[in-house]
Amino acid sequence: MNFGILVFDDVEELDFVGPWEMLTMWQKTASGSANCLIVAEKKQPVRCAKGLSINPHVGFDDCPPLDVLLVPGGQGTRREVSNPVLVDWVAKQAAGCQAVLSVCTGAFVLHAAGLLGGKKATTHWGSLDRLRALGDVEVVEERFVRDGKVWSSAGVSAGIDLMLAFIADLAGEDAAGKAQFFSEYFPSAARYGNYEAHDEAPAYLRQR
Amino acid sequence: MNFGILVFDDVEELDFVGPWEMLTMWQKTASGSANCLIVAEKKQPVRCAKGLSINPHVGFDDCPPLDVLLVPGGQGTRREVSNPVLVDWVAKQAAGCQAVLSVCTGAFVLHAAGLLGGKKATTHWGSLDRLRALGDVEVVEERFVRDGKVWSSAGVSAGIDLMLAFIADLAGEDAAGKAQFFSEYFPSAARYGNYEAHDEAPAYLRQR
Repeated sequence: MNFGILVFDDVEELDFVGPWEMLTMWQKTASGSANCLIVAEKKQPVRCAKGLSINPHVGFDDCPPLDVLLVPGGQGTRREVSNPVLVDWVAKQAAGCQAVLSVCTGAFVLHAAGLLGGKKATTHWGSLDRLRALGDVEVVEERFVRDGKVWSSAGVSAGIDLMLAFIADLAGEDAAGKAQFFSEYFPSAARYGNYEAHDEAPAYLRQR
Repeated sequence: MNFGILVFDDVEELDFVGPWEMLTMWQKTASGSANCLIVAEKKQPVRCAKGLSINPHVGFDDCPPLDVLLVPGGQGTRREVSNPVLVDWVAKQAAGCQAVLSVCTGAFVLHAAGLLGGKKATTHWGSLDRLRALGDVEVVEERFVRDGKVWSSAGVSAGIDLMLAFIADLAGEDAAGKAQFFSEYFPSAARYGNYEAHDEAPAYLRQR
């Protein structure tokens, strides 16, 4: 099984490393044999949104057919939705995937690749109106949402919750439980400031 | 102000990218001017524990004096506690720092550098007994703990909670609130399996 996580310049760091950690922790704790790959258009260093530099495992040229594709967000998505090479690659890989996931503004890349039309999806709270404005997406304000084989999450850190839910669906509750336990993902309930009551806070947060 | 995050081969990915995201999101949302650096012994690619490859910004040779140092964990710490070059560098930088933070088994590197003797500290649940066995650390089973200028957290994802608390202490509740809001760090309460009741689950988890 091939799991690919797409990266590009100005990809947001936690958007892809959160899911990467859950995915690879699941593989480790389950003695899994999935091939977990960081994929970029070209196999050369990628500069993330906040300045972290990473080296993709494969480029589009040598990436195998994927079974699962995850597209993270970040400022770079605003450029990449107009990059026909990347958008075509996503569309072609997605056609053969059993599941396609987005985190944060990665949803706009899925949309550009024709994967969100008529589907429920979500994104970072700051981009919900922009996703609605596309006109053909049923935008929901949830932590994450699944519609058929397309899963999408809210912003940045929400990719962790998305990936655990995906693992539970794919491999069972105990598999997700092990990934959660070994990554000690039992977050503090601390809330700083009063941003959960902010006008722009997503519905899932205001309703808690 | 110079914030350094130490990396080494087999550093756990989320251990350092979680705090990195909160730190850099705070800088961005607060229009901060802190210099956020990924530091390694040598300025060459580092292979993380789960296979992500990253490029440090600076090596020990060209790293400026740090104001804050964070040491993440991962399997690599078991090797690095016996690496005199790295341990000496941590001890020397720490002497000039206003705060030193560890995530997960990064606590063992702080201990090797002489920073945990007689102090309260914590680590990943799977290494609590090993930390106690060192004999001179007051091990607590909290999500994170502060003792003077030394802050330490539980495993992997706990570094996110640690960094938000540190930002709140350093720059105020609203600064931490902005980092939390823009990274949409309002995690799901989902628990998979029943690992919070596991024999080895840390006290902070069993008591919730």
